[in-house]
Amino acid sequence: MTDEPSPDSPVPGIAPEQFLRMITTRSVMRTYSERPIAPQVVDALLQGMESAPNAANTQAWSFVVVQDPRNIRRLRSFAPGVFGVPALVVMACTDNSRGLEEEADKAARSMCVAMAVENLLLTAHAHGLGGCPVHSFRPEALRLLFDLPSSIEPVLLAPIGYPASEPRPSRRRARKEFISYETYGQHTPVSRTR
Amino acid sequence: MTDEPSPDSPVPGIAPEQFLRMITTRSVMRTYSERPIAPQVVDALLQGMESAPNAANTQAWSFVVVQDPRNIRRLRSFAPGVFGVPALVVMACTDNSRGLEEEADKAARSMCVAMAVENLLLTAHAHGLGGCPVHSFRPEALRLLFDLPSSIEPVLLAPIGYPASEPRPSRRRARKEFISYETYGQHTPVSRTR
Repeated sequence: MTDEPSPDSPVPGIAPEQFLRMITTRSVMRTYSERPIAPQVVDALLQGMESAPNAANTQAWSFVVVQDPRNIRRLRSFAPGVFGVPALVVMACTDNSRGLEEEADKAARSMCVAMAVENLLLTAHAHGLGGCPVHSFRPEALRLLFDLPSSIEPVLLAPIGYPASEPRPSRRRARKEFISYETYGQHTPVSRTR
Repeated sequence: MTDEPSPDSPVPGIAPEQFLRMITTRSVMRTYSERPIAPQVVDALLQGMESAPNAANTQAWSFVVVQDPRNIRRLRSFAPGVFGVPALVVMACTDNSRGLEEEADKAARSMCVAMAVENLLLTAHAHGLGGCPVHSFRPEALRLLFDLPSSIEPVLLAPIGYPASEPRPSRRRARKEFISYETYGQHTPVSRTR
């Protein structure tokens, strides 16, 4: 990566390198302090979340923002993947009443919801908050608890809060184990010009 | 959103508001100029991509970075969702040889890959590049073309390039159509303190 400032950044005042640093310093956070999240910060989180890309712009998603501690306690009893007591949990759902009903479309809907959750987690990180995506929960119990209609399917939970401790970055695989260039298994960049 | 600088940003020099503005100004880009992407920028894109969260840290993913124009042409003939001639296409795959083989795990793997692609698209945007997630392609044709083993399943394509024209933001649904507070269908934030 170069240290020269880039003229290409679309937002004045943020160098691409700084933006990348924000993305690469996010890590999983599972213990939260009791500090509440100000309403304008919650609003910023939702703005980030809803800006994610969307297959064919169907916006086949629905989110329930849970902040009432009683509701968070209830949710946690059906979500073993939520540790600690986060100030906020977003229940991220596909809206299966929108778009096609095909199996491929179902996968596309879940992936759009996942991108929205990643935007949420990144925006949280930029605000000094932490969280993680949670896959381990009982969707039917959450459906009953939060009055979800049959077309709304929870696919991810995102607990968010201010950190109680310093997050530890996860150990990652070496890039050559999972990135190939031009063809699978070729682990060295192939430089070519058009 | 407040205009006050936040003391909570974990990366010096980026206010949360600037970061959010980068996230909210990303939009779908489908026409690309012929300008190539410098190797150090490709490296930055991959750094952003590989920093995404990962279910149980299984890193059950694999990515093929395609930059050779001949390979991009071949790929496009099996990917009707890729328009124009991008400088680079990332073929984003689940690695089904890692983690459990259960159906729930399959969905979790795809969602992790989607988060990585969103990180890639955001990092591209910060570098003045554009792209979009593509769901429309023939996975079996791509498997043959790029020598993917049977455990590697392409789930998204991400074409990336410098823009040929100004991107137009997508029209979005009103927030109250897809965000609820505390319980499904409650569209006004419920303010409470702990």
